[in-house]
Amino acid sequence: MNVFPVIAIGTCTTNLEGKILDVRYDLMQSKDDPIVNIRSSTASWGSDYNSLLSYYEKSKENNYEITDYSKHPRGKREREKIIIHKLEKDESIKDVKDAYLKLHLLSKKLVKPNSINLDGIFAALPNVAWTNHGPMDPMDIDRLRNNYDFLYIKSLDKFPCLTDYIIPDGVRIADAARVRLGAYLSEGTTVMHEGFVNFNAGTLGPTMIEGRISAGVTIGANSDLGGGCSTMGTLSGGNEIKISVGEDCLLGANSGLGIPLGDRCTIEAGLYLTGGSKVQVMDQENNVVSTVKASELASKSDLLFIRNSLSGAIQCKPNKKSVVLNDQLHTND
Amino acid sequence: MNVFPVIAIGTCTTNLEGKILDVRYDLMQSKDDPIVNIRSSTASWGSDYNSLLSYYEKSKENNYEITDYSKHPRGKREREKIIIHKLEKDESIKDVKDAYLKLHLLSKKLVKPNSINLDGIFAALPNVAWTNHGPMDPMDIDRLRNNYDFLYIKSLDKFPCLTDYIIPDGVRIADAARVRLGAYLSEGTTVMHEGFVNFNAGTLGPTMIEGRISAGVTIGANSDLGGGCSTMGTLSGGNEIKISVGEDCLLGANSGLGIPLGDRCTIEAGLYLTGGSKVQVMDQENNVVSTVKASELASKSDLLFIRNSLSGAIQCKPNKKSVVLNDQLHTND
Amino acid sequence: MNVFPVIAIGTCTTNLEGKILDVRYDLMQSKDDPIVNIRSSTASWGSDYNSLLSYYEKSKENNYEITDYSKHPRGKREREKIIIHKLEKDESIKDVKDAYLKLHLLSKKLVKPNSINLDGIFAALPNVAWTNHGPMDPMDIDRLRNNYDFLYIKSLDKFPCLTDYIIPDGVRIADAARVRLGAYLSEGTTVMHEGFVNFNAGTLGPTMIEGRISAGVTIGANSDLGGGCSTMGTLSGGNEIKISVGEDCLLGANSGLGIPLGDRCTIEAGLYLTGGSKVQVMDQENNVVSTVKASELASKSDLLFIRNSLSGAIQCKPNKKSVVLNDQLHTND
Repeated sequence: MNVFPVIAIGTCTTNLEGKILDVRYDLMQSKDDPIVNIRSSTASWGSDYNSLLSYYEKSKENNYEITDYSKHPRGKREREKIIIHKLEKDESIKDVKDAYLKLHLLSKKLVKPNSINLDGIFAALPNVAWTNHGPMDPMDIDRLRNNYDFLYIKSLDKFPCLTDYIIPDGVRIADAARVRLGAYLSEGTTVMHEGFVNFNAGTLGPTMIEGRISAGVTIGANSDLGGGCSTMGTLSGGNEIKISVGEDCLLGANSGLGIPLGDRCTIEAGLYLTGGSKVQVMDQENNVVSTVKASELASKSDLLFIRNSLSGAIQCKPNKKSVVLNDQLHTND
Repeated sequence: MNVFPVIAIGTCTTNLEGKILDVRYDLMQSKDDPIVNIRSSTASWGSDYNSLLSYYEKSKENNYEITDYSKHPRGKREREKIIIHKLEKDESIKDVKDAYLKLHLLSKKLVKPNSINLDGIFAALPNVAWTNHGPMDPMDIDRLRNNYDFLYIKSLDKFPCLTDYIIPDGVRIADAARVRLGAYLSEGTTVMHEGFVNFNAGTLGPTMIEGRISAGVTIGANSDLGGGCSTMGTLSGGNEIKISVGEDCLLGANSGLGIPLGDRCTIEAGLYLTGGSKVQVMDQENNVVSTVKASELASKSDLLFIRNSLSGAIQCKPNKKSVVLNDQLHTND
Repeated sequence: MNVFPVIAIGTCTTNLEGKILDVRYDLMQSKDDPIVNIRSSTASWGSDYNSLLSYYEKSKENNYEITDYSKHPRGKREREKIIIHKLEKDESIKDVKDAYLKLHLLSKKLVKPNSINLDGIFAALPNVAWTNHGPMDPMDIDRLRNNYDFLYIKSLDKFPCLTDYIIPDGVRIADAARVRLGAYLSEGTTVMHEGFVNFNAGTLGPTMIEGRISAGVTIGANSDLGGGCSTMGTLSGGNEIKISVGEDCLLGANSGLGIPLGDRCTIEAGLYLTGGSKVQVMDQENNVVSTVKASELASKSDLLFIRNSLSGAIQCKPNKKSVVLNDQLHTND
């Protein structure tokens, strides 16, 4: 899937000195694909790549700022400007406009997690105070506070919440604070209160997410992440192998996963399976046939991992029970 | 406790097409009980069941909508209507009005968890965008956004937060996003930031809740759920036995529970006790007297469950230490 | 560090009967130190201790309320009053003004966690409904609700969120609901969505916090608390030994800590180390050299704690791997 080159138009919030804090893209246009309208109320800025491209070229002298607010449903607001932005190729992220465009591409599901270059994203994103009256520079809070009845900060972070920018179809997110922009959530996904989805991570089909999906981790269709379960990330603390979960898997409550998992696998509630754990591999008759590092079982299917409650050993058995998601919980219309 | 038949009056939010998204009931009246005023500012709609009943009958021709706003403290607002609703018997849930009335009955503690019929609730509840400007249909967000200074979504879910509808007396909830309407919270309950209470679940007395109470689970008086602990639910992932915790119990931090627990039981921090775990039962002198499945110890009192840190075996001993809640933390006035 | 005596000026929110619910201090002045302006927009109330002291003495007849609103950037608002308050010595907390002044001292990092007397704080603090329109008495919600477009409750608790009062420099807090006023957060701290910091607890340098820092617990520089990890507190459930984590430590995801930790220690993901756990101490060649209670290893450095995945025993080895925080994640400007 090649979305580049891509041109997009969006609204930035700025700080009191005019520095861009965020970009809410209204539409995105890849060269050979139909336009993607992110906000239904967006007026027409052009209907094909070439008309947007000429718009883009024309805006160059104005530093790619669009000053014609007649097409914008909100009109001009304080600390806002409209910009047009182009990513010619999939290169490192250089600024806020690049970063937000790539996060929008992920959350609009135009690109899969781990498929685009996100290098430089932490350096490019400023730390923002996400308030009940919109994004603000933390330095500006004291001056802006008196403009409002009551100002409070929901989050003080480089990344915003997904739902402040994009509302995915057929998805439930019990606590919107727990899913970052840049998350890739497929239809039929339910993220419960204890669930969490980082940017560049997500679900590839209907799933029940009550645990944490770290950056870079993907969860296959019909899998269930139990309450408080952990998937090891590669940004901080974890190792360097990207974790993924296949289809029809169950990670039990408070369990943890440090290897990529195949399909139809189960991790028992409370068991943390790190890549370095030694695991007794059992046959159907519960005989130990070998002892291997968990990492050697990476991406294999039909496995059940438990900690034997008498011997304390981590064991891996053929998985007989397959996961069946509760349909009632996953019809998110 | 039979609350049926019950009549209630409440305010609905609708979407832009007039479809009901939620109901905030202002009062509820069972046939033989005093009226329950949920909002103190509610004007008098009638003082006994029969006057409400005649009001109800009269409203039939108007599809049970009340158009006289003179008695309503807020007056008529956009996307709102007042309705009167009756549940004659405890049947399956057919629509949003049914669902919200049963959730209100639970959270006003007029009925206990697991005592009423909640079949059909997922199908009856629409997925709603719970915003800082009230409930909205996700489809309407783009059109409604421009009415406000700044609109954001707190939650995208079928169930709302308890405290958007009902504020229970003598209760603390550190993060309101973590308790759903339909939770049953007794006076003296403190739900900390990592605590969670689903609908049709709750506490039967003063308790410290830093862990997760799944749908259908109840916690007895003076029990303490440690940070991040898990109680297995029956909706998703778990088994089919309803979990409960008796009085004076302690679930340690990051522990988990897959069996109903009696009184004065302790689960060691970090131990996940599933129903299928084999457990060494010890006597006072620490001798193993038998090995049983955890489910066989269901509902028994005075038990301490640990994982032996040298042998790795899950063990059950007579519990000598009883839980004493910190009074200072539980005086929630 | 002796900050007492200290004088401070702040804005209180009151309930409809005039009872103080909270205090937002604007400045604090210790006797021998420079003035600390918490809000940049604060007008000058005086530039040294003595001028504030005379201001304080003068206000006595007015019950320490300041009625001259000309110096206040917001002017007079409903349910607000400005007060001046003095703490002569570090005594037990008697009222809301005492409590908030001490919480401000902690979060402005003028005093370290566990260094001041916080006795009486739970009794002094009223339970407050923290709404999107400011702090309210839960009893007043129904009357105040109709003043607003849409009122909702973020939290129903004695303690507020840190960022409603103080925004620490160089800190990220992904979900502001998870850090209480009274938290001590050093520059370079990132508190992720699953992180939590109680009052009288915090970080002594740059740290990655994805787990829970209980009241009384401190985390040393360059340490990493993995997702969902637990540090035992002393307020509820835990034992009486104050937990701390030294520098360059890693607590794995879903792990737990019941002893104070030295420097360069690692707790394996998923392992809960309680003080009473028996631990096999190993040498470099992986031979068990002794078996001790975990509490005997308190505050020792360069230790790695794991649960042997075959024997189930908790083991302690010399720690060869030192933690390196991801610089990109910790440059929070």
